[in-house]
Amino acid sequence: MRESWVNYAERIGSDLHLELSAPGSKRAALIGALREAVRSGRLAPGTRLPPYRSLAADLSVARNTVADAYAELVAEGWLTARQGSGTHVAERARPLGPAVRPKAPAPHPRVRAPRHGPAIRHDLRQGTPDASAFPRTAWLASYRRAVQQAPNEVFGPGDPAGRPELRAALAGYLARARGVRTDPNRIVVCSGFAHALRLLFGGRGRGRGGNNHAGRQILRGPLAVEAYGLPFHRELLAAEGVRTVPLPLDEHGARVDRLARERAVLLTPAHQFPTGGPLHAERRAAVVDWARARGAVVLEDDYDGEFRYDRRPVGALQSLDPERVILIGSVSKSLSPAVRLGWMVLPERYVGGVLAAKGEREAWASVLDQLALADLIVSGAYDRHVRRMRQRYRGRRDRLVAALAERAPHVEVSGVAAGLHAVLRLPPDTERSVVRAAVRQGVGLDGLAEFRHPDSDMPAHEGLVVGYATPSEHAYGAALEALCGALAPGGTRVP
Amino acid sequence: MRESWVNYAERIGSDLHLELSAPGSKRAALIGALREAVRSGRLAPGTRLPPYRSLAADLSVARNTVADAYAELVAEGWLTARQGSGTHVAERARPLGPAVRPKAPAPHPRVRAPRHGPAIRHDLRQGTPDASAFPRTAWLASYRRAVQQAPNEVFGPGDPAGRPELRAALAGYLARARGVRTDPNRIVVCSGFAHALRLLFGGRGRGRGGNNHAGRQILRGPLAVEAYGLPFHRELLAAEGVRTVPLPLDEHGARVDRLARERAVLLTPAHQFPTGGPLHAERRAAVVDWARARGAVVLEDDYDGEFRYDRRPVGALQSLDPERVILIGSVSKSLSPAVRLGWMVLPERYVGGVLAAKGEREAWASVLDQLALADLIVSGAYDRHVRRMRQRYRGRRDRLVAALAERAPHVEVSGVAAGLHAVLRLPPDTERSVVRAAVRQGVGLDGLAEFRHPDSDMPAHEGLVVGYATPSEHAYGAALEALCGALAPGGTRVP
Repeated sequence: MRESWVNYAERIGSDLHLELSAPGSKRAALIGALREAVRSGRLAPGTRLPPYRSLAADLSVARNTVADAYAELVAEGWLTARQGSGTHVAERARPLGPAVRPKAPAPHPRVRAPRHGPAIRHDLRQGTPDASAFPRTAWLASYRRAVQQAPNEVFGPGDPAGRPELRAALAGYLARARGVRTDPNRIVVCSGFAHALRLLFGGRGRGRGGNNHAGRQILRGPLAVEAYGLPFHRELLAAEGVRTVPLPLDEHGARVDRLARERAVLLTPAHQFPTGGPLHAERRAAVVDWARARGAVVLEDDYDGEFRYDRRPVGALQSLDPERVILIGSVSKSLSPAVRLGWMVLPERYVGGVLAAKGEREAWASVLDQLALADLIVSGAYDRHVRRMRQRYRGRRDRLVAALAERAPHVEVSGVAAGLHAVLRLPPDTERSVVRAAVRQGVGLDGLAEFRHPDSDMPAHEGLVVGYATPSEHAYGAALEALCGALAPGGTRVP
Repeated sequence: MRESWVNYAERIGSDLHLELSAPGSKRAALIGALREAVRSGRLAPGTRLPPYRSLAADLSVARNTVADAYAELVAEGWLTARQGSGTHVAERARPLGPAVRPKAPAPHPRVRAPRHGPAIRHDLRQGTPDASAFPRTAWLASYRRAVQQAPNEVFGPGDPAGRPELRAALAGYLARARGVRTDPNRIVVCSGFAHALRLLFGGRGRGRGGNNHAGRQILRGPLAVEAYGLPFHRELLAAEGVRTVPLPLDEHGARVDRLARERAVLLTPAHQFPTGGPLHAERRAAVVDWARARGAVVLEDDYDGEFRYDRRPVGALQSLDPERVILIGSVSKSLSPAVRLGWMVLPERYVGGVLAAKGEREAWASVLDQLALADLIVSGAYDRHVRRMRQRYRGRRDRLVAALAERAPHVEVSGVAAGLHAVLRLPPDTERSVVRAAVRQGVGLDGLAEFRHPDSDMPAHEGLVVGYATPSEHAYGAALEALCGALAPGGTRVP
């Protein structure tokens, strides 16, 4: 009877729960209870059992009784004893009761699973920095300093705005690196770009049940977006009930002259994602004028603003009008998506609403990681890392351009003045077959079609989006080789 | 003209943006540009300037030019130079341009602000562990090991289920400490209880824009809840459009016999929050039977299951039927709310939906913190910390009970077999005045009325919810003293 363990359980050392309801000697009862706990999975494989002494004390039995019980179960194969490391539950397939055993195992959807079939040997998908380049030593040094020096209140409930140390560090960093005009009180920390979108557009609650959160939604649709962009963002907005309206793109970026009755526009002004150019200066001014005239707001997705390889940095659009532009950034490209930290630089009128949407306390962004990032920025290590990575990615871009010039001269490369990806333009009606050829070469990448807004009526661009930051340094040469193989006239051959 | 800096800016070392458009010598141009950057706030107070050498190289000017410019600005008070630590922007009030300066400063809502007016000198509000007891050394050791030993892929995009190391560690820990029956594939990591609720009940999107996320909502209302519970949870659910229906409470816990057509019920079976008792064994069985019969689901909020001070541990309700109960837990009480990690132990049929709701990649929980927590658990340090804190909180509970017996014998203490808070029952129509008296003593705490579901028709309980874990060890005695002062017959006097 399943209920029984609740009634008969006794707590023993290390929070172990065992049934001691079996009749007979204490030794037999303990053996039976432990065996049952292992068999049912309540004691998982690899779990270390408490030392004889403490279990004996907890159960008020002789130490020898516990030692005998352990020895018996080791003999039976339920437990293993290793000299010097105690007694553990044996590593074996752990049977689950019939109510629990799945009919078929439910595999997790694989992260970055190949979308087109074969295994990816060369990962050139966009959106990820070189994971092998994470500055472990600098990060650990900042993290250690931050945790050691933190006042006790850090370990209590957190301010939903984020730690003041991080907001101050970001205000300084964004001002000097991105030309952003703000102060720490206009910055709200979040766990990344998607979280920022959810905070701004979520919460269409009906306000029942005595709460006063009705109308918590801060921005409303329809939202203009670029005709090419991340499908994930469009899907997230659709799930929040926000309609997105595509703006066509041309060689100067998004056609902001097409903006009409939308209430907001989401842009990637520094480096259009994924096609690659900066928004033209006249359009930067025009979109801010539009927002002022219509009482609308511009969302600036500053996803790779740190990585520019030309002489002319493009500062944040936000500086044109801090009351009309929300700048959103994160460390996902500059540091790692494993550190779940991002930020919103907000016009004053939205700060209160965003904080209310986050809740009374910080429920998302790790407070210790926030302090570590603040230390990393203030110590200068963040700048050094970004500079080092900029150099590395610039080198990769140059190698990509050179390799294509030699091996696939018919392919036009664009969008390479900045960022972690390039677009290889292709002739009409070839994208699909080239993507297939790449897949056969074991190259993971996406065609431009993946990023096109389904409602867009602008002429389709064809091309490949090549994320040249993703491979580790030693794997990049082989990835380039495979890519060129797929693009070469004979690239459709299976190698 | 605001647009100008985009056109004239030159990037200089350390990603500093400066306007070098001023006429005249390079030295004067640099001084003017730096002065303007500080004045406008683009260089924030405390920012360290690049070394002469690197700035000179970036700008193609002589090193002396930079040194002169810095010296001039130090003399003017814009910069400060400290021996051995370089040149920094002076710490002064930073003026913002008129477009940015707020008419009135927008203060952040204060975290845990006193709800009743005067300053809190003795914080006895529920919901927080002793922030001074965070195991900094053990956590840092686990974090360092985790980051040093992590394979590179850790720093790329994360699996939305959470790191396998953490899910395996949790499966083992929850089995032995809480009697939970699961395996790592049924566990999904999240950033805390509120995040779990949002993942389960959120996402009522209409599925426009070519996505297939429509119907992503995993559970639907109406949701039965306990008549006393956290208002924050009810508000969060209301914001997701979920109606909550209160279940009355009696001495055996929630009246689950009142469950009817609801599709789910949210319970705190180990230790009813806030009134304090465990759910009776018969009701544990009955609620699972109800869920089976109606195809419904039980949400088990295991918020303080680790902290029991009596001999009879109450195992997780989840073990009665892992296919009908979702167990939700976090480290917010056991470790710290600063570490934003929680978990859901799911019936198999919900795993896919929850992962889809989280998104293709981990967008929330810090992957490095996940690895650190896995190490903390596997190394045994987590158990040691929980045991240490259990002892400490048990001692505080005993001191609370003893102090009240002596100083306020008319007050009945309940709910103290477990958890981090006690309920002090009060005679009818006294709660409000006693809370006021406590506030006058500088004691922060809440009355039971704060937690009552507005739709509940059960008779109101009156009492105080006293969080005895919140103060640091050395502050606890004074907090008890002040509390007793407020409860004593003469407690309404201002001290």
